[in-house]
Amino acid sequence: MGSTWGNRLKISVFGESHGPAIGVVIDGLPSGVAIDEAKIVKELQRRAPGTQSGSTTRTEPDLPTVLSGLYNGKTTGTPLAIEILNTNTHSSDYDGFTVTPRPGHADYTARLRYKMNNDPRGGGHFSGRLTAPILFAGAVAKQVLKAKCGTEVYGHIIRIGKVSATSWEEEEMPVIPTESAFAQENTSIAARMKDEIEAAKLDNDSVGGIVEVMATGFPGGIGSPMWDTVESSFAQLMFGVPAVKGVSFGSGFEVASRRGSQNNDHLMFKDGKLRMTTNHGGGFEGGISNGMPVLAQVAFKPTPSIGKEQDTVNLDTKENEKIQIHGRHDACIVPRALPVAEGCLALALLDAYLGRGE
Amino acid sequence: MGSTWGNRLKISVFGESHGPAIGVVIDGLPSGVAIDEAKIVKELQRRAPGTQSGSTTRTEPDLPTVLSGLYNGKTTGTPLAIEILNTNTHSSDYDGFTVTPRPGHADYTARLRYKMNNDPRGGGHFSGRLTAPILFAGAVAKQVLKAKCGTEVYGHIIRIGKVSATSWEEEEMPVIPTESAFAQENTSIAARMKDEIEAAKLDNDSVGGIVEVMATGFPGGIGSPMWDTVESSFAQLMFGVPAVKGVSFGSGFEVASRRGSQNNDHLMFKDGKLRMTTNHGGGFEGGISNGMPVLAQVAFKPTPSIGKEQDTVNLDTKENEKIQIHGRHDACIVPRALPVAEGCLALALLDAYLGRGE
Amino acid sequence: MGSTWGNRLKISVFGESHGPAIGVVIDGLPSGVAIDEAKIVKELQRRAPGTQSGSTTRTEPDLPTVLSGLYNGKTTGTPLAIEILNTNTHSSDYDGFTVTPRPGHADYTARLRYKMNNDPRGGGHFSGRLTAPILFAGAVAKQVLKAKCGTEVYGHIIRIGKVSATSWEEEEMPVIPTESAFAQENTSIAARMKDEIEAAKLDNDSVGGIVEVMATGFPGGIGSPMWDTVESSFAQLMFGVPAVKGVSFGSGFEVASRRGSQNNDHLMFKDGKLRMTTNHGGGFEGGISNGMPVLAQVAFKPTPSIGKEQDTVNLDTKENEKIQIHGRHDACIVPRALPVAEGCLALALLDAYLGRGE
Amino acid sequence: MGSTWGNRLKISVFGESHGPAIGVVIDGLPSGVAIDEAKIVKELQRRAPGTQSGSTTRTEPDLPTVLSGLYNGKTTGTPLAIEILNTNTHSSDYDGFTVTPRPGHADYTARLRYKMNNDPRGGGHFSGRLTAPILFAGAVAKQVLKAKCGTEVYGHIIRIGKVSATSWEEEEMPVIPTESAFAQENTSIAARMKDEIEAAKLDNDSVGGIVEVMATGFPGGIGSPMWDTVESSFAQLMFGVPAVKGVSFGSGFEVASRRGSQNNDHLMFKDGKLRMTTNHGGGFEGGISNGMPVLAQVAFKPTPSIGKEQDTVNLDTKENEKIQIHGRHDACIVPRALPVAEGCLALALLDAYLGRGE
Repeated sequence: MGSTWGNRLKISVFGESHGPAIGVVIDGLPSGVAIDEAKIVKELQRRAPGTQSGSTTRTEPDLPTVLSGLYNGKTTGTPLAIEILNTNTHSSDYDGFTVTPRPGHADYTARLRYKMNNDPRGGGHFSGRLTAPILFAGAVAKQVLKAKCGTEVYGHIIRIGKVSATSWEEEEMPVIPTESAFAQENTSIAARMKDEIEAAKLDNDSVGGIVEVMATGFPGGIGSPMWDTVESSFAQLMFGVPAVKGVSFGSGFEVASRRGSQNNDHLMFKDGKLRMTTNHGGGFEGGISNGMPVLAQVAFKPTPSIGKEQDTVNLDTKENEKIQIHGRHDACIVPRALPVAEGCLALALLDAYLGRGE
Repeated sequence: MGSTWGNRLKISVFGESHGPAIGVVIDGLPSGVAIDEAKIVKELQRRAPGTQSGSTTRTEPDLPTVLSGLYNGKTTGTPLAIEILNTNTHSSDYDGFTVTPRPGHADYTARLRYKMNNDPRGGGHFSGRLTAPILFAGAVAKQVLKAKCGTEVYGHIIRIGKVSATSWEEEEMPVIPTESAFAQENTSIAARMKDEIEAAKLDNDSVGGIVEVMATGFPGGIGSPMWDTVESSFAQLMFGVPAVKGVSFGSGFEVASRRGSQNNDHLMFKDGKLRMTTNHGGGFEGGISNGMPVLAQVAFKPTPSIGKEQDTVNLDTKENEKIQIHGRHDACIVPRALPVAEGCLALALLDAYLGRGE
Repeated sequence: MGSTWGNRLKISVFGESHGPAIGVVIDGLPSGVAIDEAKIVKELQRRAPGTQSGSTTRTEPDLPTVLSGLYNGKTTGTPLAIEILNTNTHSSDYDGFTVTPRPGHADYTARLRYKMNNDPRGGGHFSGRLTAPILFAGAVAKQVLKAKCGTEVYGHIIRIGKVSATSWEEEEMPVIPTESAFAQENTSIAARMKDEIEAAKLDNDSVGGIVEVMATGFPGGIGSPMWDTVESSFAQLMFGVPAVKGVSFGSGFEVASRRGSQNNDHLMFKDGKLRMTTNHGGGFEGGISNGMPVLAQVAFKPTPSIGKEQDTVNLDTKENEKIQIHGRHDACIVPRALPVAEGCLALALLDAYLGRGE
Repeated sequence: MGSTWGNRLKISVFGESHGPAIGVVIDGLPSGVAIDEAKIVKELQRRAPGTQSGSTTRTEPDLPTVLSGLYNGKTTGTPLAIEILNTNTHSSDYDGFTVTPRPGHADYTARLRYKMNNDPRGGGHFSGRLTAPILFAGAVAKQVLKAKCGTEVYGHIIRIGKVSATSWEEEEMPVIPTESAFAQENTSIAARMKDEIEAAKLDNDSVGGIVEVMATGFPGGIGSPMWDTVESSFAQLMFGVPAVKGVSFGSGFEVASRRGSQNNDHLMFKDGKLRMTTNHGGGFEGGISNGMPVLAQVAFKPTPSIGKEQDTVNLDTKENEKIQIHGRHDACIVPRALPVAEGCLALALLDAYLGRGE
């Protein structure tokens, strides 16, 4: 509900882009799990502006301060809360957007919803900056999953504009990704993806993309039909990010074009271990994990803030107007969104895992 | 959680395919809304086997009995419960699937989860039959939405196997669909879609597809960031149906290939009324409705039950085996799934609508 | 929310007193627990009219029909649903109460809330009859608790009108109660309680009372601060029953009169086992169970339906009027409410127990 | 669940007594409500140590810092988050309580639950200090209720140890309370209550009490059976405070001793306005408000931390031991708990009020 999500694990996200601070309260964590804060900061840096191709030049350290829930470096089991101070804010960049709403942003809908009472500076609570606390929660979930059941979560970009990379679903054994968001960093695909972003930037434009996230080592038998499933939870989480327009699992929308004989994942004992011959289902049947890698895709729209002149309206004069958006914006948010998607998968997996007991 | 969904509106779905009955409890409905039961039965018939191309020959009336919540033809405001008796069951068709699990079904994962205690007959609680009570709830939600805010929900099939139809997103003003699931019933596309199903059937195979659902007349300003949104709720609902592998809104995964300048929905006054020039966002910005038609797509995998011989394992002997599935199965469930997707959209919309008040 | 309760375990109660059926869906039960249906029927009979002192002469078998969730006598782990048909209904007894509301009933508040759309017959969804499905769920929870952790739930009446019995909190080791609701069945206290009820009946009046419920064998370390506690859950459940006006734990309101030195439960090793020297806390400190018996009290108001003439209003004419209530009513519902309170404790305990895992 | 509460309105409380900060995120507030922060600070001061009879000498300003959710002095409608820094901490006072648990505290149960990973300093997340963020949320709810429906929330102490004051239930029109927790500040009762606290303090002991809270002006017709009621919500909230052992409404446990003819609240038109002749029900019938003042009582146990020597155990040596607790403790927390109970009532009322819409 609202900015609160979860079942066993609950996260409550707060903050506006240009207010005093953003943050998150994570409730329901198991106790006694050692948390490596440096590792979390590293995850936050993957999302931080300026560290990825095509990102805004607004540079923020995004250093989280732990307010509660860690004691002697371990989770206490009671709520873990953090805040990230907002420091490098240029509020004047955003003046007037409640009157002449930016296309593709929540300026107009927020006005309908909150009757001009929401904080409009920097997009307020709708800002992409709010994915930082979500990512923090996800980074904690990653560490807890690793400690509790050996599960690891990865991700890579499989599309930027017109350039696509191969889904891990196709591979017998996926290549463990490097630190880069571009899975095949040293290949021509990565280079072409970066070119796609660079070209959009030069055009005062932006470009969208698709990320793919995967979890290995997640135990089978987790989840409950109908709606207590990783699929439902992950989709719910991801659609909380305004730029997300599609979520899929395994072969995703491709399944629609297939015959059952092509699409069914067959069961097989191989070296005494049960597995599926393919992973078109993305790790689930009937909402319950089957022990295969969990695999999901998330489509992100191009950043709506672009330098080009666009059509909009003036809500005061009721007349059509032109708008040109200045300021610091990403030509492509997909590289920065990747760790967020990984974190959301970790949150969905951990929430399901904590419900495994009977 | 589990088989319970919702925030303001709650549905609790129960039943196994071959148990005494399936049904649903709907809690949180507004009081005093006239419900046309004949209309609901009509919706259930759209989902009923035998009434659509490619569906199973198991014929069931699927007539719901109202147990509570309606009085003098109107909602009381207290829980509306219904049951649908299971009558035409052939349980012997399903013997043994807990030992030699069917590929693409939940036989194996249910065994991991419930340690052989779940009802395996006809897929038990995992059966597609359980979409009937979800559809019932959705059909009620449709009528309540219509009465409360004039919203209407439609749907059509936009892909069957290799044949695709045009998304309503592309059209200036979508054609109001006929009763048929095939939006362009009398066109060559509808014929080719039916051919695609027929061909799969003749091959003892099945085929997948994509449905698109739309709501017109839904007011702007409904929903709250981050997770109290129609997008999150609809995705959560749809992924509760085992055959669903992807959910998207507006232009869906297409946004990934676009530039921002192409994708942004611009605002415009036209005849004194504010609207977007396009509907790539599918009716939402930042999780809040913008007054445009709500538009979503759902990908369904091909029915896993096919007549062809498939690979599987024997979980007792730990050996690889072949399996051939007999019995009554759909070559394509997409036409029957369409009203379910419409119903889920109505549920997500109504849940959001009921939270509009402050 | 509404008629849906729970966290890990969820119950969704439906039905109106004089509609086709009442019932409940129980979601989140562990799988594979053998359920003795005869035992549940016995519990329902403790609540059934006509079987207890002072109860109405309306006799109903109240036999539940299981619709789903049991297979081969065991829980499947998917939703367990039951219905109880309403057979012996005299709706004419209740005509007109929406115009001249009965004092102490929900007639007036239901009219405010549902604008005359609720089913008024027999109190509709507000009827005490709706405690039957709650009790069913509680009786299932009792059996699951017994099977999973050896916990047993008991109860007795500690007050009827002016007659009180001793709380189990005072006793070193409580006497295991007999089948009767009157803990000390063969003592003078039980006789005096029954006299209290009989005297009220002869006066065309009714009388209230207090029940005490206890659980033995509930493990320590269960529950989470602040609100995921048995205390919060049990209170929430009990206040869902309209006749309940107070809920307390351990020494209850008595703690207010005490010094800390009297009230603190001290810790002690006795025969190598850790226990508290007293049980003033009722089995919890900080919302977490401490291994002592769980002990709670619930106050029930006298049945509002009495034969005596009472003051009320006519909501149509806006004039004050007299009302005399005819029909079949309990002079004291406390004996019938006792198993419901036990069941609610079992539900709260099981919900907490299912959340124990990390 | 856990430290997260609510339905439409959600609060997520975090912090440990001696960690960096405590705080709360409030999600689901209506937008555009002017919030008077000075008034909230005044409420926090009513709870602050050192400002009330019998309270600890630890003095803390308890000044909250707003992190989000207020803009231009009004609620934005997105999450309102605050933090209160912990400054005046003496952690050494609490060393060793995980080995020799304090009677009446959560030391032992927290050890069972969190396996020694919880923060034990000052009681950690179990500390009474955590009622400050709950109170903050309650103080916000008070202002929103006042603005939205004119409802006002009051409270007074009706028992300290052996001294009791008259419940407002008995009065035709309750006296509007002064700023003091002792309703009849200038009467002999207030003096005797203070004497009761002083006497306990001189004995190195503590004493319990009962508070009564009331809301006037709350509209009728709010709430839904069975569990979406102010009664269920308020009880759930209050039992989240470790010192609470009982919660009741209207006449509370007194109803058990009464006849129906005495207890029923009769309806009456008086000067053209409908009201009840008495308020034994405390403002609700069937879980729905009836327009009368909302009236509830909460029993608080005596502070478990006392200077007297007490019995406990050593969990390492498994031997019985004596414990004497030093440090700064309240002889009676009831005066400081009063505003917390008022705040919890405001939270329960606002949550119900926000659900009024259909």
